[in-house]
Amino acid sequence: MTADCFRLGQGPKSAYGIAPEIMTAKRKILELNAFDMDAADGLDPGVAALVARRKRVFGPASMLFYARPLNLVRGEDVWLIGADGTRYLDAYNNVASVGHCHPRVVAAVSRQMATLNTHTRYLSEIVYTYAERLLATFPREVSNIVFTCTGSESVDLSLRIARAATGGTGFIVTSNAYHGNTLAVNDISPASASTEPRSPNVFIVPAPDTYRTASKDVGPTFAADVKKAIAAMKRKKIRLAGLVADSLFSSDGIYPGKPGFMAEAIAHVRKAGGLFIADEVQPGFARTGETMWGFARHGLVPDMVAMGKPMGNGVPIGAVVGREEVMATFGRDIRYFNTFGGNPVSIAAATAVLDVIESDQLLDSVSRTGQALIEGLGELAKRHSGISGVRGCGLFTAVEFVDPEDGTTPDAATATQVVNELRDRRILISASGPAENVLKIRPPLPFTAEHATRLLSELDDLLARLAP
Amino acid sequence: MTADCFRLGQGPKSAYGIAPEIMTAKRKILELNAFDMDAADGLDPGVAALVARRKRVFGPASMLFYARPLNLVRGEDVWLIGADGTRYLDAYNNVASVGHCHPRVVAAVSRQMATLNTHTRYLSEIVYTYAERLLATFPREVSNIVFTCTGSESVDLSLRIARAATGGTGFIVTSNAYHGNTLAVNDISPASASTEPRSPNVFIVPAPDTYRTASKDVGPTFAADVKKAIAAMKRKKIRLAGLVADSLFSSDGIYPGKPGFMAEAIAHVRKAGGLFIADEVQPGFARTGETMWGFARHGLVPDMVAMGKPMGNGVPIGAVVGREEVMATFGRDIRYFNTFGGNPVSIAAATAVLDVIESDQLLDSVSRTGQALIEGLGELAKRHSGISGVRGCGLFTAVEFVDPEDGTTPDAATATQVVNELRDRRILISASGPAENVLKIRPPLPFTAEHATRLLSELDDLLARLAP
Repeated sequence: MTADCFRLGQGPKSAYGIAPEIMTAKRKILELNAFDMDAADGLDPGVAALVARRKRVFGPASMLFYARPLNLVRGEDVWLIGADGTRYLDAYNNVASVGHCHPRVVAAVSRQMATLNTHTRYLSEIVYTYAERLLATFPREVSNIVFTCTGSESVDLSLRIARAATGGTGFIVTSNAYHGNTLAVNDISPASASTEPRSPNVFIVPAPDTYRTASKDVGPTFAADVKKAIAAMKRKKIRLAGLVADSLFSSDGIYPGKPGFMAEAIAHVRKAGGLFIADEVQPGFARTGETMWGFARHGLVPDMVAMGKPMGNGVPIGAVVGREEVMATFGRDIRYFNTFGGNPVSIAAATAVLDVIESDQLLDSVSRTGQALIEGLGELAKRHSGISGVRGCGLFTAVEFVDPEDGTTPDAATATQVVNELRDRRILISASGPAENVLKIRPPLPFTAEHATRLLSELDDLLARLAP
Repeated sequence: MTADCFRLGQGPKSAYGIAPEIMTAKRKILELNAFDMDAADGLDPGVAALVARRKRVFGPASMLFYARPLNLVRGEDVWLIGADGTRYLDAYNNVASVGHCHPRVVAAVSRQMATLNTHTRYLSEIVYTYAERLLATFPREVSNIVFTCTGSESVDLSLRIARAATGGTGFIVTSNAYHGNTLAVNDISPASASTEPRSPNVFIVPAPDTYRTASKDVGPTFAADVKKAIAAMKRKKIRLAGLVADSLFSSDGIYPGKPGFMAEAIAHVRKAGGLFIADEVQPGFARTGETMWGFARHGLVPDMVAMGKPMGNGVPIGAVVGREEVMATFGRDIRYFNTFGGNPVSIAAATAVLDVIESDQLLDSVSRTGQALIEGLGELAKRHSGISGVRGCGLFTAVEFVDPEDGTTPDAATATQVVNELRDRRILISASGPAENVLKIRPPLPFTAEHATRLLSELDDLLARLAP
């Protein structure tokens, strides 16, 4: 994979057809690829019975994937196995990052469960050994860690620390960002489907749209937008605390962009006294195939980094790491205790994840498979006129659909159909983006070229059948 | 154990010596029983080396228990085992609620780790089976569940839901309450050591002090205080969302009180349009030995219940359950997804916890051991003049120390000394309360009368030696 990741498609289009209000309106990202809970007719009776039980205990609004939901009972490597024995190729789940039920993670967790599981108010060597090893993957300035249980807890804590360290309350995020589910983090997650009133302290900028903006303009445009947000904040007498960004802009539609393009915007944030908080829940732990962390692609040293999802391969664990001077404020003024944060069992899982990333050289294999996948998708784009763009980085890949007639109108219907038809062909992906027209292909990291070939072949076949 | 729990000591004292400002000031509950990170001299070299490594990665302010911190390497049942082989009787940890490394929990987690670990957007029968079983322990009206990963996430979500369901933003909590660590939950946790500015939406009432208030006055006093808080909120044009309370008032100093005394206060909350949110992170899962849930002692049906700590015996899992009509608002207006919430591995742990509570009849044994413990502590109180009060419910017991000279001044120094000397006698407890003078005895539930006898005997001996 080249240093700037692949970016294919028809190039910049300022009149792409997404109305500006769509870029800032409250979006329903959590409802992409959702099962209609009142559409249980025609389902397999076993599945329908489970749907009914689920509806009773969770209420009707809890979201299930797919028009025909999956009842899964087993997982291994890149495979998820249904109750009827069907094996699904998982090209979606980033949480079981080193593969479902990876034997080293299973063994480490089982061993630690039988040995000791307690909290960080007692000494525990394995916790510090892991912390030292994880911190060694960060720039030297980022030297302190706090363990949490989830990415949401990590981002929430980073907001508290940023407010304490800067004295500010204002945050900048992108227009379809999703950073988590606590009350405070929901405020900085425009993609959340919630109708709750949002905080006046949150300022929204357009995501750096690397597809509809000429490559040389992406950085300056993003920087100019951030500068405008800082000015707007100043006018409202709100002091800047920081900018929170996932450097893949995952729920904005997946825009890795050229390494380095974020630097100018971050410089504006720092000049105005704000911090840069890198949300690495999506890009972290080798997902990009280029670097262990997404921010590293941009040559940045963040003030804080929030981690979650892939850290323990599904065992709940998260962390905030940060610069010593920022974390010193936190230690002095906030204090913090997280009961399950840094428990030895979650640490055992996280240690095994680092072991596997290193021993299986996942950075390399992610880079190679990602390249094969994105090249193959580029070939499909030449043959299928509905595909307007393909982009990605490592094993986080986007395929964008527009109406082939006008070449501009986002085509969410086709994206949804592709997701569901691939499911029927035993391949799992999902969709993303403010217009819900972008396939999200984000498999466990041990995904190989062979798996990519199967995905490409099924996608090719079904797109040919979908063609009018 | 009698229905109203034990309440011993010298009875009500309005001039007890705690200045009113202590009852409302920001407290440093998280620093009770803390090791001074700059006092590593004289520690065992292995322990000192771990303290130094910890300080480097966590920063200097992260809190360790005890003047001589413990380096633990193994746990079983009610025992925690140090690196040097010392076996400590655990009379403190409520997270490993059914006992450290309980074989059924270990087996369930190990099996599920090797089978499947994913999220709730796929169907998973074991998740619904657990949800049905857990909901069956609640009043019929409480019929919907949302899984989270931690007690903090649960309380945070309950705040979001209460705001959406009532249209209010005001919350009432007790003066030294601790409900968790997110930005929003920190606001309703006066006990947190943070110096962050607190929200004007939070109104504080004195905890129902069952020791310094005559028994017949506890309920009416608490109700009157809550009524005053509601009136104050009204004057400030803040609409009531709800009252959040842990029915054991754990960090206020542990006041179980007479069953039913909370009802009058909750009636005021409901009359004013607010919800009652029961924080069951501490009293839940059979801790009281009387009922599965703390609110049940008061004959209340909560609008929402937040769960955490003991739910998975240390495996991160939490939940919010609530009345159908409240949770319907949530489903319609908030939506919510929690990546690790309801993952099959955490559910397997939680299922094993319910299995053990039932098969080992822990409610009964907690009740019996709790009674033996509190009676024994009552005997000690007769012989040791520093003990001014003993109270508790099930295996959550408080021993309060005051200056024997004046019989009123809280004696935190003795409480801290007792905690540390018991540690040297290989028994683990901690301290609580706004004046830091209350021993907190809160062992894993399989604690037996024999374990209680050892604790009582060591405590008796060391108090005799401490006597001037």
